[in-house]
Amino acid sequence: MSDSNVKIFDTTLRDGEQVPGCKLNTDQKVIIAKQLDLLGVDVIEAGFPVSSPGDFKSVEAISKIVKHATVCGLTRSVENDIKVAAQALTYAKNARIHTGIGTSDSHIKHKFKSNRDAIIERAVSAVKYAKSFVEDVEFYAEDAGRTDNDYLARVCEAAIKAGATVLNIPDTTGYCLPSEYGAKIKYLKENVKGIDKAILSCHCHNDLGLATANSIEGVINGARQIECTINGIGERAGNTALEEVVMVLKQHPYLNLDTNINTSMLYGMSQLVSDSMGIYTQPNKAIVGANAFAHSSGIHQDGVIKNRETYEIIDPKDVGVTESAIVLTARSGRAALAYRAKHVGYELTKIQLDEVYANFLSFADKKKEINDNDIHQIIETSNVYQQIISA
Amino acid sequence: MSDSNVKIFDTTLRDGEQVPGCKLNTDQKVIIAKQLDLLGVDVIEAGFPVSSPGDFKSVEAISKIVKHATVCGLTRSVENDIKVAAQALTYAKNARIHTGIGTSDSHIKHKFKSNRDAIIERAVSAVKYAKSFVEDVEFYAEDAGRTDNDYLARVCEAAIKAGATVLNIPDTTGYCLPSEYGAKIKYLKENVKGIDKAILSCHCHNDLGLATANSIEGVINGARQIECTINGIGERAGNTALEEVVMVLKQHPYLNLDTNINTSMLYGMSQLVSDSMGIYTQPNKAIVGANAFAHSSGIHQDGVIKNRETYEIIDPKDVGVTESAIVLTARSGRAALAYRAKHVGYELTKIQLDEVYANFLSFADKKKEINDNDIHQIIETSNVYQQIISA
Repeated sequence: MSDSNVKIFDTTLRDGEQVPGCKLNTDQKVIIAKQLDLLGVDVIEAGFPVSSPGDFKSVEAISKIVKHATVCGLTRSVENDIKVAAQALTYAKNARIHTGIGTSDSHIKHKFKSNRDAIIERAVSAVKYAKSFVEDVEFYAEDAGRTDNDYLARVCEAAIKAGATVLNIPDTTGYCLPSEYGAKIKYLKENVKGIDKAILSCHCHNDLGLATANSIEGVINGARQIECTINGIGERAGNTALEEVVMVLKQHPYLNLDTNINTSMLYGMSQLVSDSMGIYTQPNKAIVGANAFAHSSGIHQDGVIKNRETYEIIDPKDVGVTESAIVLTARSGRAALAYRAKHVGYELTKIQLDEVYANFLSFADKKKEINDNDIHQIIETSNVYQQIISA
Repeated sequence: MSDSNVKIFDTTLRDGEQVPGCKLNTDQKVIIAKQLDLLGVDVIEAGFPVSSPGDFKSVEAISKIVKHATVCGLTRSVENDIKVAAQALTYAKNARIHTGIGTSDSHIKHKFKSNRDAIIERAVSAVKYAKSFVEDVEFYAEDAGRTDNDYLARVCEAAIKAGATVLNIPDTTGYCLPSEYGAKIKYLKENVKGIDKAILSCHCHNDLGLATANSIEGVINGARQIECTINGIGERAGNTALEEVVMVLKQHPYLNLDTNINTSMLYGMSQLVSDSMGIYTQPNKAIVGANAFAHSSGIHQDGVIKNRETYEIIDPKDVGVTESAIVLTARSGRAALAYRAKHVGYELTKIQLDEVYANFLSFADKKKEINDNDIHQIIETSNVYQQIISA
């Protein structure tokens, strides 16, 4: 591993799937895992095996089909969790067990009714036990974002000594500011004995809209893994969005940090996850939203026509957005419809466009997404069709 | 103005409304403006008066009804734009003209086919001309994010000398990292002569998912206004989300930065804008998404039930969400099920809970979300039902 390489740990199928009402079945998970492997993620967190027979089965099935990525299973610091995870990962080419425990005072006091030293003991036992099954053990210090740095460093040191290869520093509640999260990673990098034997990992939540920025500050300050999900899905306001952190690093080459992601697959990956889970991104979602590369204001259109770089920093093709990938919906405007109609062969006057647009809206209300075939039908059934084709 | 007060400049009705296919009519804009005034924003950018008769009419109508906020109209550095904006703002209690010009080499070369000195001359003329109509003139240096700091400082100095009261430093393409944007504001604060006579303003775009973080770094480094939109709407990946920056400042009191926003109106405001524009936020949108306060995984639900603070940093009531809806799914644990069962009238013993939970899991595998009616059915069809009701 070169020092500039940031590992992408995808947890769409574990933390991402903790969205109310969006359970995937094993077949859907296997399809997503295959695509994540092609996308180039380094680690696929496939589930939490002890949590249900369905999750066990999914982790096992994914372990069998993933060719390149490490497959990871989540556990608590509980022996049975770890044993079951190891079983589910039996067939993985590269298996990782992800175990850990809450380390903030809020977690230690309210959740575990325990104390700091006892928590370290449990952490060490869990890592050692996991290590008896697999070489690659990641340890999470849950709510690290609200854990004081001094104690967190002690926990990390103990976990490394027990054999942890990766240390996950989650901002579980999405509370940290980028400068705070960066400083926390820097503190650990500078104060944990043996830190060079392990990789620090950023796991950020988006409750205040800061997950991407926090993860980037984390890697700038020495972390070398980011835990993230496609479309930033997850509980509450979700996790760090994979597509955002990957493109931030790609667009800022002077940071000298890169990933193994094939960015031209990002848009397709986003669509696959949206469709599988039935959770759609908002039009203004960065990188993968329907409008991410759409310009509507006169000033901007003019600027883009003169020179794309005036208003656009990312070439849409770099993330897999081609013109045919842009989907029209009831949210789309006249300009988008006219553009697309022209693309499939119809030049509409302003008055024709008004008529066709009304017809388009009633179509789009019934059918969520409008493709090129639909556009032909919309134009053919509009009352200006004869006029359009005789023009 | 105390030095800790950050002005909130809402541009939902101007930059926000530049979303493909989502034009609002004057009546809708007036309703939103009234609510923004109640929400406590300091400035309402109501439109770009010269761009269309509709926009002119909206700015005029909003000027008449806003009671507290400053009403602002956008212009280019063009005399007629400025004259028309001043006319549209005639009835405003507090009027601001927002004028400016592109300052990055990309804009100067490709958009204006001009040079640096000529751009400064145009900027100065525009500010002076605006100043002949209103006292409060904001100057924007478009694409400041990609303008080198030295030239940008010269532009700012000239704008202040010409009478600008606010200097808007837009990251027009959403390219900056938080540390870069913060450093830019710091540089201006330290190097622009006369900077104490003007307020520096952050105007960030979300193309890389960093708008919130960039705005926060801006105010940490000396800016005292944030330009933002409800739900972060806007062209491409949108603008800074008002609800996010406001809650970041509120949740980090040690920054000693506050706003005049009545946060308990945030959720209602988000709904009003979504409904008016027909653009809905994704479920995992920070602060105002449908799932922003929803917990589904067993571990998290258990934590929240023991103590809300374990996983939740914001009290949903603070942003106008009446209850953090706990949704049950196959990911939910025993504690969440017991909590919800109790809520609908069943006190379960530990052994009863084990039985009911097994039944719950097989239900939840078939039906994605479990509601209260389902819970009755799950309990009635469990083999401890007689025991439960006879207790």
